[in-house]
Amino acid sequence: MDDALESGNLGPYQDRPRVFPNMRTKPSTPLIFRLIMRINPRILFVLLLLALGAIFYIGARTSPIIVFVFSVCIISFVFSMYLTKWVLSKDEGPPEMVQISDAIRDGAEGFFRTQYGTISKMALLLAFIILSIYLFRSTTPQQESSGLGRSMSAYVTVASFLLGAVCSGIAGYVGMWVSVRANVRVSSAARRSAREALQIAVRAGGFSAIVVVGMAVIGVAVLYATFYVWLGVDSPGAMKVTDLPLLLVGYGFGASFVALFAQLGGGIFTKAADVGADLVGKVEQGIPEDDPRNPAVIADLVGDNVGDCAARGADLFESIAAEIISAMILGGTMAQRCKIEDPSGFILFPLVVHSFDLVVSSVGILSIRSTRDSGVIGVVEDPMAILQKGYSVAIVLAVITFGLSTRWMLYTEQAPLAWLNFALCGLVGILTAYVFVWITKYYTDYKHEPVRTLALSSSTGHGTNIIAGISLGLESTALPTLVISVSIISAFWLGHTSGLVDEAGNPTGGLFGTAVATMGMLSTAAYVLTMDMFGPIADNAGGIVEMSQQPESVREITDVLDAVGNTTKATTKGFAVGSAALASFLLFSAYMDEVAKFAHTGFKQVDIAIPEVFVGGLLGSMLIFLFSAWACSAVGRTAQEVVNEVRRQFIERPGIMDYKEKPDYGRCVSIVASASLREMIKPGALAVVSPIVVGLVFRVLGYYTGHPLLGAKVVAAMLMFATVSGILMALFLNTAGGAWDNAKKYIETGALGGKGSDCHKAAVTGDTVGDPFKDTAGPSLHVLIKMLATITLVMAPVFL
Amino acid sequence: MDDALESGNLGPYQDRPRVFPNMRTKPSTPLIFRLIMRINPRILFVLLLLALGAIFYIGARTSPIIVFVFSVCIISFVFSMYLTKWVLSKDEGPPEMVQISDAIRDGAEGFFRTQYGTISKMALLLAFIILSIYLFRSTTPQQESSGLGRSMSAYVTVASFLLGAVCSGIAGYVGMWVSVRANVRVSSAARRSAREALQIAVRAGGFSAIVVVGMAVIGVAVLYATFYVWLGVDSPGAMKVTDLPLLLVGYGFGASFVALFAQLGGGIFTKAADVGADLVGKVEQGIPEDDPRNPAVIADLVGDNVGDCAARGADLFESIAAEIISAMILGGTMAQRCKIEDPSGFILFPLVVHSFDLVVSSVGILSIRSTRDSGVIGVVEDPMAILQKGYSVAIVLAVITFGLSTRWMLYTEQAPLAWLNFALCGLVGILTAYVFVWITKYYTDYKHEPVRTLALSSSTGHGTNIIAGISLGLESTALPTLVISVSIISAFWLGHTSGLVDEAGNPTGGLFGTAVATMGMLSTAAYVLTMDMFGPIADNAGGIVEMSQQPESVREITDVLDAVGNTTKATTKGFAVGSAALASFLLFSAYMDEVAKFAHTGFKQVDIAIPEVFVGGLLGSMLIFLFSAWACSAVGRTAQEVVNEVRRQFIERPGIMDYKEKPDYGRCVSIVASASLREMIKPGALAVVSPIVVGLVFRVLGYYTGHPLLGAKVVAAMLMFATVSGILMALFLNTAGGAWDNAKKYIETGALGGKGSDCHKAAVTGDTVGDPFKDTAGPSLHVLIKMLATITLVMAPVFL
Repeated sequence: MDDALESGNLGPYQDRPRVFPNMRTKPSTPLIFRLIMRINPRILFVLLLLALGAIFYIGARTSPIIVFVFSVCIISFVFSMYLTKWVLSKDEGPPEMVQISDAIRDGAEGFFRTQYGTISKMALLLAFIILSIYLFRSTTPQQESSGLGRSMSAYVTVASFLLGAVCSGIAGYVGMWVSVRANVRVSSAARRSAREALQIAVRAGGFSAIVVVGMAVIGVAVLYATFYVWLGVDSPGAMKVTDLPLLLVGYGFGASFVALFAQLGGGIFTKAADVGADLVGKVEQGIPEDDPRNPAVIADLVGDNVGDCAARGADLFESIAAEIISAMILGGTMAQRCKIEDPSGFILFPLVVHSFDLVVSSVGILSIRSTRDSGVIGVVEDPMAILQKGYSVAIVLAVITFGLSTRWMLYTEQAPLAWLNFALCGLVGILTAYVFVWITKYYTDYKHEPVRTLALSSSTGHGTNIIAGISLGLESTALPTLVISVSIISAFWLGHTSGLVDEAGNPTGGLFGTAVATMGMLSTAAYVLTMDMFGPIADNAGGIVEMSQQPESVREITDVLDAVGNTTKATTKGFAVGSAALASFLLFSAYMDEVAKFAHTGFKQVDIAIPEVFVGGLLGSMLIFLFSAWACSAVGRTAQEVVNEVRRQFIERPGIMDYKEKPDYGRCVSIVASASLREMIKPGALAVVSPIVVGLVFRVLGYYTGHPLLGAKVVAAMLMFATVSGILMALFLNTAGGAWDNAKKYIETGALGGKGSDCHKAAVTGDTVGDPFKDTAGPSLHVLIKMLATITLVMAPVFL
Repeated sequence: MDDALESGNLGPYQDRPRVFPNMRTKPSTPLIFRLIMRINPRILFVLLLLALGAIFYIGARTSPIIVFVFSVCIISFVFSMYLTKWVLSKDEGPPEMVQISDAIRDGAEGFFRTQYGTISKMALLLAFIILSIYLFRSTTPQQESSGLGRSMSAYVTVASFLLGAVCSGIAGYVGMWVSVRANVRVSSAARRSAREALQIAVRAGGFSAIVVVGMAVIGVAVLYATFYVWLGVDSPGAMKVTDLPLLLVGYGFGASFVALFAQLGGGIFTKAADVGADLVGKVEQGIPEDDPRNPAVIADLVGDNVGDCAARGADLFESIAAEIISAMILGGTMAQRCKIEDPSGFILFPLVVHSFDLVVSSVGILSIRSTRDSGVIGVVEDPMAILQKGYSVAIVLAVITFGLSTRWMLYTEQAPLAWLNFALCGLVGILTAYVFVWITKYYTDYKHEPVRTLALSSSTGHGTNIIAGISLGLESTALPTLVISVSIISAFWLGHTSGLVDEAGNPTGGLFGTAVATMGMLSTAAYVLTMDMFGPIADNAGGIVEMSQQPESVREITDVLDAVGNTTKATTKGFAVGSAALASFLLFSAYMDEVAKFAHTGFKQVDIAIPEVFVGGLLGSMLIFLFSAWACSAVGRTAQEVVNEVRRQFIERPGIMDYKEKPDYGRCVSIVASASLREMIKPGALAVVSPIVVGLVFRVLGYYTGHPLLGAKVVAAMLMFATVSGILMALFLNTAGGAWDNAKKYIETGALGGKGSDCHKAAVTGDTVGDPFKDTAGPSLHVLIKMLATITLVMAPVFL
């Protein structure tokens, strides 16, 4: 401990807080960031132009659709640069705000570098393992005949994996980069106008949302076009275009691998800091949230950026990438079965949908305008209504563009009306997203019955509050499950009856129908991500306002924005679970296709009446429980470290409570950072290692008991059961956490005794329990279920 | 409210507490109890002799094995009468104890009558529904040819259902009957000797355990023999003996139907009273547990009897019945496939195993002897060690008798060494039971790491305590899942390699192997149930000692017994989940056999790659979450009513705290009783109705989409996923609850600040949350997963 800071009366924060220098000097800063930062801007520009030229060249040689996708993505990137320039042009406010913001930025960037240093080492190790496995695995007959030999396919997979991992890392970095810069600008704008503050937060969120979605799309498109040109696809004797998407699975796996650790590490960081700060600050000392006297307050604000912004960026990136790739695989398989002459429409459809996603979401973001005439301070409109209006704009446009894309891409003469059925599938998906958001709102917003009942149960004590919250969370799984069930079945049947048939006349469009529904659900993903990113930025802005002791009127504005941010965060989590559920169902089908190709035999059934397969399911569900346990206990353990540190500082520096001594913020940040890096390994490793181990064990068991494909079947059951349990568990954790948070907020509005009452104390306990639920374990489960699907896809050859 | 009681200083409990007369006069008292109570003892004796003669007659006409089973059961019943006579011969202690005990007995019996009145009405309604369904369903060709027509099979099923329901009710009643009489005798004996108190509690528990197991066995045996004789089985043209067990499924369903509602109602009662009493008494007023000043204390003690004793009796009765029937079905199917000449050995094996269970458990119970020479007051030995010693005796004998029974029953000339493999399967089951008990102990006993960590996390507040407890519970699912997986697979392979093959030479013994393992697991069920029943009796005895204000030395003895009871309750729950997991796997296979017979086609696969089947799984898992939610929230809501009532009494009768006024115990009992009867309906109805609705909906959907057997397949997936999720959820809830309870007890031993510290308060919150987990939702889930299996078996014809 450095005692120099303790000397003298430091006054209200004239000095910049000391921020853990030990993290910045660590040699583990990823090389790629250092390299990019050092390049001369002019050279960078030339390189960029060359890269653009190259990708357009291969795009043009592949398909005009790819050129369209490239163009939309690049225009969107330019638009996102406009957004960020607009945000950065805003003033940063008075120096005390800037200082706090700098401390947050340093903390966030320091943690990000160390975290991604660790993640990149693990990714490299895994890349090496995948390479070794692929060098010794068997190849499919199609691959052999197309000249894609063993070593070539190994390098292709590893390259995709690494590209996915790097892009996922950039997606996370971008989310955090803009949020640590926008937070202070929102605080500053809140001194002038609520509307302007809202607009800055939305545009900052919009920037990272567009970059994240755009990068997922362009990454897949570039890989696809590169492989297309390089392997001379569809020339005689070469690979068929319908087999091409299978080469992309590495990209999805890389993305979800990085997203898992990003979400785990960030989630543990943010919630350990939050819980620790609340337990001592709010509960023991009775000081308000984000009070500058709390030594853990900077760590809490840093956490919002690394946990919510960076991690959610990586999460959505991975969702979209996984969903695009699985839909492409299914589209290819279906086109092949139906002998469709030009299958590229079916394969490239997801890329087009997400290109339109970029367009409609941009329009939605732009529709939220500053009303410059009413420059008075004060809240004039409900910010939620403004965000909802933008969402409505995006959704209406998405319905139209989705219809157009189905007609453009999925029209085939074999079944002239199939595109109409698929358009309806898309509508099913869009409706599902809408209903999901509504259900989440019903269970987590204190305008509705459930949260009010929860708040009421706090009046009889901590215990009844927890029981009621857990019941609420468990109950809230029912409606979304019913909705998902209806949408899977109806989309499947719409696809099934689309008129697309294979040579034997069997309908084949069912699975592709569910894929289209998933795309429909994600067709406004960029706007939803914008709303999600809005939350932590507003939260941070509120923290900066509170810490720099701004007048009450400013605090009121950021409070309103913060409350809206909480709701949008909760509802987007519902959206994320729903899309994860659908995407996993697709990835599962893709896995079965993949196994069938490698095994040179049909693999159409996963029969849970076989004891080993049933056991695989049991293990899959157990994996979810164990993973959730480890994620929650990581937060609990780290929070205890924070509690002890904060208590120690209050004892050793008694002047803190009278503003006479400055707390050592940096030490709390360091403690949380190192603890969360340590704690993210165990659950993460469990998720990566267990499907591989189960697959290998049952492969061996199957070999000795004369049961072919046993490993692949057991892994399939594991995947399915883990998906089902994971969806339910994530819904439970997210909703319970959100409801507890808002029950506390409801009581803080003055209901049932208001702040400081026993009822409020019980509600704070619930909120504390809900923190790791809704921001660590829950969102990590979204990523986990997709990562399980992609890891089994990549590792499929090992299980045979 | 009756104000008469409020007048005057009533002193320390010279009056018998007033107990809700409104419950005793209700006309809904089950007719059967009233009838039995009114019959002249001599007539009853003659009737009994006639009944005995009749069953031995049909037994002799069926098989000598049945005669053996009858004899063992009847000897066991005589032995159990000896035990109860021995217990009742003990003195009831001073009048103040008797008064409290009377109040508990009245409360328990009153609630039991009202509860079973409601349950019997629902059972009759369901019987009528089953009858209507069976009268319009199709029959199997075997049934047609054997003359078992539509109406006959309807009456047979309904009669089995009603018999199962009545037996289950009696099993519950017996458990409660003895516990409300033994509790006061244990309290009284605790004034003399710890050993004697222990012995009374064990023998009282042993009585009901033997009656419960014996009734399950004799019920199935009587039904089997009756059908055998009545239908002229195995005579030319009649039904084959291997098809007979399928007629018994109604019995299992009746048993689990009653057990589900018994467990739900009793579980809600006991925990709502407990939580309500603790929240006001311990947390708000700071008076000890079971303090006579707490108006909810009698309700809490009543709850132990109706929740733990009655409900656990019905639960284990149902477990054993379901397991026997499913094993008989599988044994019959296998014997038929292998064309074994005399299949009765394979079919009747489970009955023999449980007959020996009665014998070895009786020996185990008798091995716990009072050491009359050391008649001094004071704890001389660890009661846990004494119980464990008895368990070891029972287990060693069970291994021997199990080996003998396999040789006797399962020897066949077709595969001379098959019995050895099956004996090993039994060993696998016994080991599984042992390991399960050990794992539960590790996670819930404060001698081990997990509970100590949990206690430590209480020192940083309510929030961290809850997070740590939930993590602990979720984590504790991992090891049992691995154990169950290993035992399913190894038992399956032992059976598979037993040498039993069908006509085509395919090994067929696999499933029967897992059935034998389940039997092995349950081969000491009566002793385990004895240990379980011991818990609430000791708990009640402690309550009576505390309420009648006995000296500290007496309280110490009952405290030790109570602590041991907590551990045995927790460990037997582990045992119950494990056996439920194995039994459900069997019932699932039996369901597939049943469907195949009705559908006149093979039904060997449940393919979760079909979207509808996957959706069925999703719905099955969701059912578990929703059921748990409703069970927990029922407790929360009822507890809030208790809290408000107790608070009201403390305010309106300020003399209570100074022992000047007597609390109105009866009112608390009434409130809890009526609330728990109301609250048990919703989750119970969900469990019964949802598989039927899902099956019917998908049957219709399958009909319109040209997908045969869709309803049956979807229900199968629902069943499997519900089983897996149910096992994990039950493990989570039971273990978390037990660990919280013991973390609190650990702190009460003086660790981490001891009683009254902030740490202890946080631990009490955890204990409160754990109460509905471990005693309402968790145990109800054990019953639920088996009830789902039996309901699908009975309703199978509807789904086709």
